Amino acid sequence: MSAIERTAAILTVGDELINGQLIDTNSAWIAALLEEHGWRVSIMMSVGDEVNEIVSGIGKCSDAADLIIVTGGLGPTQDDLTLDALADYFQVEKIWHEPTWQHIQHLYTLMGREASVMQRRQCFLPTNAEVIQNNQGTAPGTVYRHNGKILVSTPGVPGEMKHLLRDKIIGTLPHGHAPYHHHIRTAGVGETVIAEMIADIEASLSSAIKLAYLPSWQQVTLRLTTYDVNSINALESFAEKIRQRLGTLAFHPDAMTISEDIGILLRNRKETLGTAESCTGGYLAHLITAVSGSSDYYTGSVISYANEVKMTQLDVSEDVLQQHGVVSQQVAEAMAVGARKALGVNWALATTGIAGPGGGTPDKPVGTVWIACAGPYGVTSRLLNLKRDRLGNIESAAITTLVMLRKTILEAGGN
Amino acid sequence: MSAIERTAAILTVGDELINGQLIDTNSAWIAALLEEHGWRVSIMMSVGDEVNEIVSGIGKCSDAADLIIVTGGLGPTQDDLTLDALADYFQVEKIWHEPTWQHIQHLYTLMGREASVMQRRQCFLPTNAEVIQNNQGTAPGTVYRHNGKILVSTPGVPGEMKHLLRDKIIGTLPHGHAPYHHHIRTAGVGETVIAEMIADIEASLSSAIKLAYLPSWQQVTLRLTTYDVNSINALESFAEKIRQRLGTLAFHPDAMTISEDIGILLRNRKETLGTAESCTGGYLAHLITAVSGSSDYYTGSVISYANEVKMTQLDVSEDVLQQHGVVSQQVAEAMAVGARKALGVNWALATTGIAGPGGGTPDKPVGTVWIACAGPYGVTSRLLNLKRDRLGNIESAAITTLVMLRKTILEAGGN
Repeated sequence: MSAIERTAAILTVGDELINGQLIDTNSAWIAALLEEHGWRVSIMMSVGDEVNEIVSGIGKCSDAADLIIVTGGLGPTQDDLTLDALADYFQVEKIWHEPTWQHIQHLYTLMGREASVMQRRQCFLPTNAEVIQNNQGTAPGTVYRHNGKILVSTPGVPGEMKHLLRDKIIGTLPHGHAPYHHHIRTAGVGETVIAEMIADIEASLSSAIKLAYLPSWQQVTLRLTTYDVNSINALESFAEKIRQRLGTLAFHPDAMTISEDIGILLRNRKETLGTAESCTGGYLAHLITAVSGSSDYYTGSVISYANEVKMTQLDVSEDVLQQHGVVSQQVAEAMAVGARKALGVNWALATTGIAGPGGGTPDKPVGTVWIACAGPYGVTSRLLNLKRDRLGNIESAAITTLVMLRKTILEAGGN
Repeated sequence: MSAIERTAAILTVGDELINGQLIDTNSAWIAALLEEHGWRVSIMMSVGDEVNEIVSGIGKCSDAADLIIVTGGLGPTQDDLTLDALADYFQVEKIWHEPTWQHIQHLYTLMGREASVMQRRQCFLPTNAEVIQNNQGTAPGTVYRHNGKILVSTPGVPGEMKHLLRDKIIGTLPHGHAPYHHHIRTAGVGETVIAEMIADIEASLSSAIKLAYLPSWQQVTLRLTTYDVNSINALESFAEKIRQRLGTLAFHPDAMTISEDIGILLRNRKETLGTAESCTGGYLAHLITAVSGSSDYYTGSVISYANEVKMTQLDVSEDVLQQHGVVSQQVAEAMAVGARKALGVNWALATTGIAGPGGGTPDKPVGTVWIACAGPYGVTSRLLNLKRDRLGNIESAAITTLVMLRKTILEAGGN
């Protein structure tokens, strides 16, 4: 850790957080932003919509850190109490802030409506607040400097919070010494397999360089970190060694996801992709089209939940459907081959299976999925036996199909 | 609030939480479980893998609550420090727990492997721990009773945490008085519009009944809550009044999402649905097929990223595409009409637009989306001007298309 490390705390406010109605995604986003700017988060906290609990939360955060980010509790309704808590904590009054009222009226005019009396509540701010206009909403951000600490308050709506912190506030705060990271992303094999592949490289890492495995259902990311500028070259050379060992398992350095990596491969090869989905029901297409610019190589999909659609749009024969059943290797392969033709693409993927929770049989239980990939050199297919819930099975089937495509393209060679 | 309310705190441990690499989903799950059992969570906290920070977190939670749930930091590696922190906090030693070692060896035997020396670390437990065997993993749960407070420690792996708390631990803790909830879900209008529609009903709520608005990008949920069993009838009658006032805005009581509500409508009407997606790229189909049993009414989708696919699969004429451009009312309507025919369905939805960040023009900036709905009585369409990022625009376009379908079906009458 660096000597000029600075410590931050994050406090999120809202009954919906502490009663489990809403998962707090703000804290992780803020923590990542702070880390980029050299702040180490030492504590995160959530409290409900009660003045004394917010005040007590601010106190606990202030004990632990130099910078405290508070989000939420700034709306116009009676249960939005963060400004009251801040005034209590600093022992100041709240006063009318005319520019905020002008801004709210302006936003309402744009919507062709009139600001309601309720909105006036958002214009009374603690006297010691430095006010930061919120271009994406009515409640302003505020910054307080008190006893050598800095406290920042933003709305809890993620878009507004991100706008205020990223675009307006983080640049005005002192910066610490940010860590240097190198990420290596992979998909298709588990973290223990990767750990075994690179065990000797990992064992030779110097103590100034830390290697973390960040696994998710979609991919395994290796993160090399150092806080020591003199170790950056060594870190990069370790990263290179790991990339060489992993070979084609590692994504292109510019690719954050397997869909982005496939996009880079297809664009380089000037090839196109289409999909035919049954059990994944559009999620495979969504993963591919989540990539900006995917229309350069992705032409489309036929989602064939009904057998008629498989026959009319994908030219799957009624015989094959009846003889093998809709969840079968033959149907998956026929869908992929049919999609390749119907969509006029170089590569086509297909999925057919039982996502659950209904629809299973003793022969083909829930989680039985056939996936197929048709390309210039023929069609390959694979049987999956998935064990997650409906959305989990859909996700796993879609990701595994992308892993199959990536592997098939790489094995096909070419540029 | 009830007199027999009990207060709980949740502490999650892990560097991956406070550096923003992982969103903490455990806390919300635990909070919902505790609420069901009559515990009110007053604070949630996350700290990193440092003994003194874990000890300080336990202290802060203990100040605020009678029950403290600590998850994470129980693995076999050197950065798993929760047991050390607990021993520090209680000022006790850690001692060897032979049954845990037997259990770990048993699990490894099942996998056909031998437990490593590293795993022995997990068998040294604080002397005051009540040990709860973890059937889903190696690290046990532990329970501590200290100064009138109860502290529970479980692994951070969600499956193991849920197993231990739900199956083994929550039933052994004293129960409070669980709240009674009634949820009313809506989509398509903002929370302020709903608040204005039901302002007089809300004003007449007794103090024992609380109304919360839980807005998301997808829907607005109204939640009525009481902790007083004598107020349940009054709560139900308020819920009925609100449902009557909202009319068709409110989902069917069994529907958690707009896709489920549309599924109920279509199933009752014995009607079918198909989709034709350009800019939403499969996400609209995914929302529909996320509902178990959706294959009863949903036949499929044509995702036409390329114009050729719009022409060949949806029979959109080249003239219309050239004259009006791919992002136009005419193309959206032609796609919906073409999909209705190609998929042989009663209702068909279409989307075409620019999700961004690339692809915008001065005429048609990023966020310009046309959506259309074709049904038995013709086709309707609507222009959207979205302002979110790529995935946000895709989500908003898909949800708004579902809102349009739901409204059109309801206005078409019938059963």
